[in-house]
Amino acid sequence: MRAVTIRSGELHWVDQPDPVPSGSELLVAVRAAGINPADLIQLRGHYPAPPGSPPDIPGLELAGEVVAVGPRVLQHQVGDRVMALVGGGAQAELALVEESSAMGIPESVGWIPAGGFPEAFSTAYDALFTQGRLGLGDRLLVTGAAGGVGTAAVQLAAAAGARVTASVRSPARRAEVEALGAAQALEPDQALEAGPFDLVLELVGGPKLAEAVRRLDQGGRLVVIGVGAGRSLELDLSALMSRRAQVFASTLRARPSFEKAEVARAVEKRVVPLLASGRCAVQVAGTYPLGEAGAAYQRLAAGGNLGKIVLASAG
Amino acid sequence: MRAVTIRSGELHWVDQPDPVPSGSELLVAVRAAGINPADLIQLRGHYPAPPGSPPDIPGLELAGEVVAVGPRVLQHQVGDRVMALVGGGAQAELALVEESSAMGIPESVGWIPAGGFPEAFSTAYDALFTQGRLGLGDRLLVTGAAGGVGTAAVQLAAAAGARVTASVRSPARRAEVEALGAAQALEPDQALEAGPFDLVLELVGGPKLAEAVRRLDQGGRLVVIGVGAGRSLELDLSALMSRRAQVFASTLRARPSFEKAEVARAVEKRVVPLLASGRCAVQVAGTYPLGEAGAAYQRLAAGGNLGKIVLASAG
Repeated sequence: MRAVTIRSGELHWVDQPDPVPSGSELLVAVRAAGINPADLIQLRGHYPAPPGSPPDIPGLELAGEVVAVGPRVLQHQVGDRVMALVGGGAQAELALVEESSAMGIPESVGWIPAGGFPEAFSTAYDALFTQGRLGLGDRLLVTGAAGGVGTAAVQLAAAAGARVTASVRSPARRAEVEALGAAQALEPDQALEAGPFDLVLELVGGPKLAEAVRRLDQGGRLVVIGVGAGRSLELDLSALMSRRAQVFASTLRARPSFEKAEVARAVEKRVVPLLASGRCAVQVAGTYPLGEAGAAYQRLAAGGNLGKIVLASAG
Repeated sequence: MRAVTIRSGELHWVDQPDPVPSGSELLVAVRAAGINPADLIQLRGHYPAPPGSPPDIPGLELAGEVVAVGPRVLQHQVGDRVMALVGGGAQAELALVEESSAMGIPESVGWIPAGGFPEAFSTAYDALFTQGRLGLGDRLLVTGAAGGVGTAAVQLAAAAGARVTASVRSPARRAEVEALGAAQALEPDQALEAGPFDLVLELVGGPKLAEAVRRLDQGGRLVVIGVGAGRSLELDLSALMSRRAQVFASTLRARPSFEKAEVARAVEKRVVPLLASGRCAVQVAGTYPLGEAGAAYQRLAAGGNLGKIVLASAG
């Protein structure tokens, strides 16, 4: 097969050995694979793939067709259309997927949105609901709301009856984010002013985060998923105590496969039906051939996109 | 009645009008009232009493006998022995207690330990179990473990089957804290070295807190209750994310009465039986007459005590 391959900090499109499914693995012919900020960090050498994943082939999510199965596979067969989060290796013609992480793709959903679905919607679902306990009427702030996880979070929160304030740096993207279900999309400082919030989903990081803590209401939660703009938070514990507030932080990628399976089952049950019905949709800002990953990565790094950049196979 | 009274930053023992119970309030003849670090802060003018509490009479907890009841009181009568958390006003001959916050005192428990029970054990219970979700086999670090909340937390955690490491600054107190159920009581730096922990109960605050975050295991929780040694935390969000860790912070005093009632019912159901059976005991480092609160406050401020300082009525 050919695969996007990281060599000396650059992306190449080269031949690699075909992966062989064992145990409960599916071998999937990749039709589409989303790009994520973690890929940019991995390319710069700062975020190695977890053990058991290809060290040099990036890609955390994919959609494709099952072409072979390992001897312990129970519920899938050749020809199934699946999408999944993986530890790495998704940006290739073939990739291995643990059966327990695979989600079926609704008939109404094409390969490109399916390839950009797993990471953004699983991350948003886990952060908002499993960690942040978002519910009907909660006031939510999403920072970096125009990105992949942000556009997923705005849609899921609106579908759950939350009142969403979206913090969006690029003026051109604000009306689009409001169209996804945000009550208001504002520039970052104004968005903070719109508090208090019951939940803040932090996808940016950096110096404004300390202010976000002060905008939490009693019992408020801050869930930190992205810290591209800065990893350190000068946390005012008195402000946190007087609000009885909570700070959560997590990544999906480092979790063991049984925990990823748990997330996949929750997303398949609660979110995929919204995708099937059209209540939520994967926002795709651009698609590139798998063999032109370099240009796609540059597009993501440049920012200002609404939603995801997705690589697609030639087939 | 006479009451401990704050005037110009000093404590006096002076006549005050008798409080009159209305609604669902109990009038209680105070037999004992514990002192807490919050009282020291209030004396310095930095922590005013919440609305509805006497502004100048300190005291967050008491034990005593019901001597009159408001017209909406349903479940208590004159003569009942009760203990309770209150918003303020406990350090006086008479005090008002919301019926919903009152807990019955087991026959086997005297006035002095009952007067030092509510704040320490309610705070420890809420922090460890309601917030921190402590369970069987969890590895717990308690900082400041020799104090009132600390000694309560060590006993409750041991009773729940957790493995407790106690951080105790005073060498003289370490064997005593181990006798309460800690697997090990160590000086603060060594205690941190004993990680990783599933839960850290932070009762001290200050610069070592950042290191505590790095000692959390996957899914670990940091619950911040006391920050006497420093209110700011330079939080490494990457460390938090890679551990999928959570930071909680809270105080009991500022909560509305219906939430205090909820805590009281949980403590009455789950903790008071441990007190009645002798499985847990209020550690009392010293008792002083109500009229000598100044000396008692100095004793608490000096530190190095095992457990609580309690004021007792002359009667």
